[in-house]
Amino acid sequence: MNELLSRIRIVLVATTHPGNIGATARAMKTMGLSDLRLVAPKCFPDEAATARASGADDILNNAVVCDTLEDALADAVLVCGASARLRSLPLPVLPPRESAEKAVVTAQHSPVACVFGRESSGLNNDELERCHHLLNIPANPDYSSLNLAAAVQVMAYELRTAALAAAATQQDQVPATPLASAEDMARFYAHLEQTMLDTGFLNPDNPRQLMRRLRRLFNRAQPDQNEVNILRGILSSFKR
Amino acid sequence: MNELLSRIRIVLVATTHPGNIGATARAMKTMGLSDLRLVAPKCFPDEAATARASGADDILNNAVVCDTLEDALADAVLVCGASARLRSLPLPVLPPRESAEKAVVTAQHSPVACVFGRESSGLNNDELERCHHLLNIPANPDYSSLNLAAAVQVMAYELRTAALAAAATQQDQVPATPLASAEDMARFYAHLEQTMLDTGFLNPDNPRQLMRRLRRLFNRAQPDQNEVNILRGILSSFKR
Repeated sequence: MNELLSRIRIVLVATTHPGNIGATARAMKTMGLSDLRLVAPKCFPDEAATARASGADDILNNAVVCDTLEDALADAVLVCGASARLRSLPLPVLPPRESAEKAVVTAQHSPVACVFGRESSGLNNDELERCHHLLNIPANPDYSSLNLAAAVQVMAYELRTAALAAAATQQDQVPATPLASAEDMARFYAHLEQTMLDTGFLNPDNPRQLMRRLRRLFNRAQPDQNEVNILRGILSSFKR
Repeated sequence: MNELLSRIRIVLVATTHPGNIGATARAMKTMGLSDLRLVAPKCFPDEAATARASGADDILNNAVVCDTLEDALADAVLVCGASARLRSLPLPVLPPRESAEKAVVTAQHSPVACVFGRESSGLNNDELERCHHLLNIPANPDYSSLNLAAAVQVMAYELRTAALAAAATQQDQVPATPLASAEDMARFYAHLEQTMLDTGFLNPDNPRQLMRRLRRLFNRAQPDQNEVNILRGILSSFKR
């Protein structure tokens, strides 16, 4: 149970108010989560963060500050991104319960990341592209702005609830081959993009839509490590 | 949906930090709750409350300040009390999901109250006696102290989720006779206690345990208004 929850990390992107980082640490610890990663926080460490963390300073002290979202996600095989607005992106949108259930199935064996964006504007489309699905907390359409740490609290609560349910049924479904990590996939996408540029299939004047569509396709498939190796072997074979 | 949620009130008892009152208002509004009652708050109104409420000042402005918990609960027919510790009280203890489902069934027709205690020590036993069941948010046993507004956010989220599910199935099960309100029940208990004192059945040297047991018994039964009238008729008939 604790081991499973230790594989689920919370990633905060470009947080403006350090108080929210502290309150997030507290919310995580109450639910048994421990792995906090901060991508380019505005002020950290900060007194306000420590004050709001209450007794959860260990989470703050162990928080990893990353320059980029890629760094924060590197070994994660499942990434869910919080989104208050229901965007037009063709990604699956799940409420917290279903999102947590998915996360807990994967966290039986592999790292999972839940990503939360800026207080003002959430995650941008580039960041959401890194996600396998979107997490949407159902909210009052007239006033949907949950505080950042409150949103983390809701998700952390659902993660613990799902982990308790999984521990009760205890179905360990370890896949035969480990799933590809975000780092594996990033290398694959770079390889794919370069190959498409080399072959002239990808037009550098409008490169983005094509890569986005491909990302979505492969993220839906959730390849394992063998499969990614095969895909990259195919790309290398084109080059030769 | 909005009407149903408007029948579910959040009651904060003896809140110390006004910031938590503001954050509670925000948490409520994001989930479509609007009825906030404050029993003997330490500082209210207060700048810190307004600041943390963000755009939810309407909830704060409409919040009703009450002298006693009885006042705050008066017309409620179902009361759930948040409790971080699993006490030895023989009351049913429900996690947020089940507690919210119960609340939503009753809120189809009658007022419901969810009561949250002091930041430091929660609700005392006298206050918990007013409740039909306890709400316990499953938490890390080594660090279970959710922030007050974070606890309200989790429950408010479950209430909205349960209301959405209920709206989807839409089974309006209005009871034939309205259930007794907390005020009806308080009058009944006073009547019962006085009658027992008059008859000598209740020993004034140790009156509490007996009344507690009776409260629990009748709270479990959730009498309707006719039934309470019958019970009081019986008590009156003893007196004559």
